[in-house]
Amino acid sequence: VKIMRVAIVEGDGIGKEVIPAAVEVLDALDLPIEKVPLELGYGKWEKCGVAIDEKDLEILKSCDCVLFGAITTPTDPNYKSVLLTIRKELDMYANIRPIKPLPGLVGVTGKNDFDLVIVRENTEGMYSSIEEIHDDVAYTKRVVSRKGSERIARSACKLAKDRKNEITIVHKSNVLKSDTLFLGVCREVAASEGVEYRDMLVDAMAYSLMSYPERYDVVVTTNLFGDILSDMSAALVGSLGLVPSANIGDKYAFFEPVHGSAPDIAGKGIANPIAAILSMKMMLEWMGYEREAALVESAVEFSIKENITTPDLGGSSSTSDVGKLMADHI
Amino acid sequence: VKIMRVAIVEGDGIGKEVIPAAVEVLDALDLPIEKVPLELGYGKWEKCGVAIDEKDLEILKSCDCVLFGAITTPTDPNYKSVLLTIRKELDMYANIRPIKPLPGLVGVTGKNDFDLVIVRENTEGMYSSIEEIHDDVAYTKRVVSRKGSERIARSACKLAKDRKNEITIVHKSNVLKSDTLFLGVCREVAASEGVEYRDMLVDAMAYSLMSYPERYDVVVTTNLFGDILSDMSAALVGSLGLVPSANIGDKYAFFEPVHGSAPDIAGKGIANPIAAILSMKMMLEWMGYEREAALVESAVEFSIKENITTPDLGGSSSTSDVGKLMADHI
Ligand SMILES: CC(C)[C@H](C(=O)O)[C@@H](O)C(=O)O
Ligand SMILES: CC(C)[C@H](C(=O)O)[C@@H](O)C(=O)O
Repeated sequence: VKIMRVAIVEGDGIGKEVIPAAVEVLDALDLPIEKVPLELGYGKWEKCGVAIDEKDLEILKSCDCVLFGAITTPTDPNYKSVLLTIRKELDMYANIRPIKPLPGLVGVTGKNDFDLVIVRENTEGMYSSIEEIHDDVAYTKRVVSRKGSERIARSACKLAKDRKNEITIVHKSNVLKSDTLFLGVCREVAASEGVEYRDMLVDAMAYSLMSYPERYDVVVTTNLFGDILSDMSAALVGSLGLVPSANIGDKYAFFEPVHGSAPDIAGKGIANPIAAILSMKMMLEWMGYEREAALVESAVEFSIKENITTPDLGGSSSTSDVGKLMADHI
Repeated sequence: VKIMRVAIVEGDGIGKEVIPAAVEVLDALDLPIEKVPLELGYGKWEKCGVAIDEKDLEILKSCDCVLFGAITTPTDPNYKSVLLTIRKELDMYANIRPIKPLPGLVGVTGKNDFDLVIVRENTEGMYSSIEEIHDDVAYTKRVVSRKGSERIARSACKLAKDRKNEITIVHKSNVLKSDTLFLGVCREVAASEGVEYRDMLVDAMAYSLMSYPERYDVVVTTNLFGDILSDMSAALVGSLGLVPSANIGDKYAFFEPVHGSAPDIAGKGIANPIAAILSMKMMLEWMGYEREAALVESAVEFSIKENITTPDLGGSSSTSDVGKLMADHI
């Protein structure tokens, strides 16, 4: 067997709590994985004046994938986002965010009859970093390329083929001509892949996703729309602390909870590790460890059934208690 | 008394059903209002090859304000959005969207203990129309100006002073430097107006608004974020058919339901007129007819109490039945 090299980046804030919990569960599986710990983020920036450097990128590139916590972004305009740097440098263009209720838990709408995945383009759109800042006006350039749209549409179709063979393309082409390109390319790709498709305007989709999540399966959209819709959809499953994500490129992959570093609750041991643990589970699937991924999922479900949960889910356990219970269960 | 000239634009689709209902309720109040009917939109475009022309704009400008239904946007790239043209030409920079549950109705989350207003910048941001379209790549320029940010921040603060004297500024300044300008200006204005302020990232806000709407009062944001968040928030009050809006400039104002022309249900007489009627109510408030606005609100509440509602609210009445009941009630 090939030994997988996994960079472990806790990052800042609750990243330092949820990643150790996820690693404890990972360790319990006893897989041929080499862990490569790496300090990145605000903490490093305070010490070294830089949050990520060339050497870090070399190390990341020497790994097969990354398990990532969360990073605090200071308001300092010279601070370059670590997350965005990594996504870009490692060209991980597909951000996959499953929105699926966990057994026994419901979100703000009380529904649990849905199971959808948001496939977010991860390298362009409003995240181009092409900006022009003057004193009285500032511009950001939204970039939509054929190539970028094509490859994200392919990712969505690939996923759709293992699911209901349909995608919903989310855009704002009634206002943004750049989305006419995105929509057109997504339709072309879906047609040529034999995947059913329909499309929705992003504003209507925000309403519809909250009202009828059961209508959707694979949702594909541009970068910032995916950012907003996936956080919003976390309300459907109950807590931002439950939503995992994968950033996938042709060579690398990067797994992280959708939540941030949550400085307000950091250090208290109350952060929910489930999003991090489910992100680790997505990593196992990406590696081909399907059986182990299923074990992790059942450990998560066990912790909820036993009510060994953090306060956001009504429990009174700590982050590490939850991790420990799941590791023991495995 | 001054006679107010109100342009009545039904537009397309269900606009042709909900606006007549709103006008019936308006007529019942017997106010010194001169109605100026105007045909704009897709229907006109099919007939004349243009959805709105110079003469229409002259007529609109000769009025004090507009009561507007909804317009169907064809996919034809030569079609220029009527709504966006009017907002721009009449410089109606503040789009005010109250998100408030109606007595007896709840939305997808079952909550009814909130009452907030989204104040959306209406003239710039992603709606600049500055685009560059090539075969393999397309760009849209997001524009944030100091002047634009200043005046929308002032609108929000003005509103806040009649409410809880606090605003929440929604932005994505961790990615968009253009939002650093927006955020900075909003903070400055709020500080100088003596209004409390805090800020939220748009993704976190989407989650938080769905989870804790009761935490917010006046929410101020840029154009497209306001578009998305207001449609999303319609799920909180139960139906897109319930959310009204006002577009306010220094000279003109323009009142319209947040919903679109809904071609799928048009012509069936099942469209909910409440959003249009509450938009008309916002028009009355803008004109200074506070007492009449309160009457309209009580008529809306009466129709719900009597269960004279359209199918989206579980009733079996038609659009015009609902309008008629409210007119009679008044
Ligand atoms: C932290 C931030 C730059 C990031 C983003 O906007 O992509 C985050 O919100 C996410 O969704 O991963
Ligand atoms: C129809 C469309 C151009 C419009 C917008 O995007 O502003 C609509 O969604 C709205 O919210 O008024």
